[in-house]
Amino acid sequence: MKAIVLFVLLSFGICFGQAQDAGQPASTNVPNVAYPSIHPDLRIDFRIKAPQAQSVQIQVGAAPKLDMVKAADGYWTVTTPPVVPGFHYYFVTIDGFTGADPASYSFYGVGQDSSGIEVPEKGVNFYLVQDVPHGEVREHWYRSKTTGDWRRCFVYTPPGYGTNSQQRFPVLYLQHGAGEDETGWVRQGHANFILDNLLAAGKAKPMIIVMDNGYAVKAGSPPPDNTPAPFGSPLMRQRMFTMTAAFADVMISDVIPMIDSTYRTIPDRDYRAMAGLSMGGMQTFEVTLNHLDTFSYIGGFSGAGTGFIFGNHAFDSKTAYNGAFSDPAAFANKVHLLYLGIGTDEPERMHTGLVALHQALNQAGVTHVFYESPGTAHEWQTWRRDLSDFAPRLFVAGSK
Amino acid sequence: MKAIVLFVLLSFGICFGQAQDAGQPASTNVPNVAYPSIHPDLRIDFRIKAPQAQSVQIQVGAAPKLDMVKAADGYWTVTTPPVVPGFHYYFVTIDGFTGADPASYSFYGVGQDSSGIEVPEKGVNFYLVQDVPHGEVREHWYRSKTTGDWRRCFVYTPPGYGTNSQQRFPVLYLQHGAGEDETGWVRQGHANFILDNLLAAGKAKPMIIVMDNGYAVKAGSPPPDNTPAPFGSPLMRQRMFTMTAAFADVMISDVIPMIDSTYRTIPDRDYRAMAGLSMGGMQTFEVTLNHLDTFSYIGGFSGAGTGFIFGNHAFDSKTAYNGAFSDPAAFANKVHLLYLGIGTDEPERMHTGLVALHQALNQAGVTHVFYESPGTAHEWQTWRRDLSDFAPRLFVAGSK
Repeated sequence: MKAIVLFVLLSFGICFGQAQDAGQPASTNVPNVAYPSIHPDLRIDFRIKAPQAQSVQIQVGAAPKLDMVKAADGYWTVTTPPVVPGFHYYFVTIDGFTGADPASYSFYGVGQDSSGIEVPEKGVNFYLVQDVPHGEVREHWYRSKTTGDWRRCFVYTPPGYGTNSQQRFPVLYLQHGAGEDETGWVRQGHANFILDNLLAAGKAKPMIIVMDNGYAVKAGSPPPDNTPAPFGSPLMRQRMFTMTAAFADVMISDVIPMIDSTYRTIPDRDYRAMAGLSMGGMQTFEVTLNHLDTFSYIGGFSGAGTGFIFGNHAFDSKTAYNGAFSDPAAFANKVHLLYLGIGTDEPERMHTGLVALHQALNQAGVTHVFYESPGTAHEWQTWRRDLSDFAPRLFVAGSK
Repeated sequence: MKAIVLFVLLSFGICFGQAQDAGQPASTNVPNVAYPSIHPDLRIDFRIKAPQAQSVQIQVGAAPKLDMVKAADGYWTVTTPPVVPGFHYYFVTIDGFTGADPASYSFYGVGQDSSGIEVPEKGVNFYLVQDVPHGEVREHWYRSKTTGDWRRCFVYTPPGYGTNSQQRFPVLYLQHGAGEDETGWVRQGHANFILDNLLAAGKAKPMIIVMDNGYAVKAGSPPPDNTPAPFGSPLMRQRMFTMTAAFADVMISDVIPMIDSTYRTIPDRDYRAMAGLSMGGMQTFEVTLNHLDTFSYIGGFSGAGTGFIFGNHAFDSKTAYNGAFSDPAAFANKVHLLYLGIGTDEPERMHTGLVALHQALNQAGVTHVFYESPGTAHEWQTWRRDLSDFAPRLFVAGSK
């Protein structure tokens, strides 16, 4: 509803000739808070109260930290250069302490509850709450035999799920990235609004979306070793694969049977998809390509092809993923969609890695879709666009 | 699931003779974070990184701020005295900046996303996730004719709601307090686990719980005036009543018809309850006592009886709430439950106010239940106990 309030405020501002560069409170601010405030040219004014501080800085996403300037009233302010539209985590640093801005709602990302700012994209509303029928997002607790504890997932059911009690639906399993959790695709990604809007426009098949927690430790295993390990190091990769192996068991042995017995699904590989972003894309490839009897639609958003992300571009299409790609014709017959997405402004390592996988798959004759999100980085605006482009391609292979 | 992990860790600690006073990470910490850490005697160790700060303080709930002490590694630490079990908001102050601790999940309270710490109560698990069937909590968006925008509520459906598609259920409408929102009763209050546990023990009737947002502005009205107004001042009271009038219209005209047409409810006053905490209790009395054709069970947790909360103990049972109490026998016949709850350690103004209302109702011969939560203040542990004591009394007047 805050998006609508913001829209109304913006409309009034334009109608009544308010100063062209007047800022408006971000829709991600808590109620009744004026700052951060976004200008029409997407510069952001930040304002932080810290009367006794020596130094206050703001960092938006991966941009450099900006020094704020102290005013006589104890507030520090800064205006950023124009930012890329979409959702950005941001961080406040006060005399060496880095935390969240009390003016913002918090979102679980980078391993903690972080401030976030929604920067509107002019004329774009595919991920905003609109005047269309809305599905529900259900917090669902289930007992995992794999991990031995109760776990939480979120389940999107499309509009009409509750009233038409006979219809059965295909299922998309949709995973978050590292440092995020099962709340991310709805809170940051607006996956529910993206599907509501696609469905209202007749652009996607009604489907259930299951968003699980991507972290798992098998029952009886020691707790994870959290000592720091450099990105891509053997220790880090080993930990990631151990966790993904446990998570694959959770998906195959716990989550899918639970979902198929709890919701009105079509429990068949032709009606089951999996996708994920970053770490979730890596996990999606590991889970689906080793279980092609279970899935027939596969999406990797900024994260498919583990070796590529880690800078290892050696790819043998005959042996990768236990030979899943070794017979491209058989693969194309079995897998209705293999999808890769990447933002053009992602870190070089990631962009190069995904493009290299795309080219290697082309060279091997493996049919797939490659989507590039223009002007966006390793961030939610990329993944919202991925989902909006990916979802209409799902569950359309009706004749197979 | 973190509660279970914590429990397992505590069990191991005890089994293997770990030092009696060793602390354990709070279940409200984000993953892989050791501090805040809670000792068996409920002292809490806090630890904050702020290398260049001159002063760092921690405040737990309404307790006085504690000065932290800086170590050579740039971390500041302090150990609190033993705290009351339950959920407490807490705040970090660094050189005059007050915000959230990045070690904690954030919870919307006191008008912002705040850090929270769950302090275990020994031998008490009625609000923890247990090995019992779990209901679902559904994020539900609806269009309000009253406010003219899309609003969000959360809906708890009991275990078995999805599989038994014929059974219909009574409904409890359950409201948050001022500075909180529709997320509070699940995230801080664990209303879903409280009901799951009561149902598993056969102590309550299966019911739907609807948790709506208590703030509302009628369509076409000017936005709320947010200039500061002292608690209980005429301006503050006028604003509160204007908002509550709009919220009452949302409840009666928008939410209840939407819920009755969307879920398998029993759309009848005998099967409809409303309760709320603090401001939500005040709103509950305003809504229900003016709509006794709609509700037959009424609960005010730390917030019933507006005048009493504001320090006005003049209560005329003949005229209050448009004469709802004027005929006690008729009231008792019509209203199956009138319930007041209060913590013994709430601020004097609130405790005295609720006790005075209780006594005034007794004097007027108005049948009601009065519950005091021992040793707790204006906080979630009080309201969890209220709900756990209140819910078993609902929808049992089957013969009426």
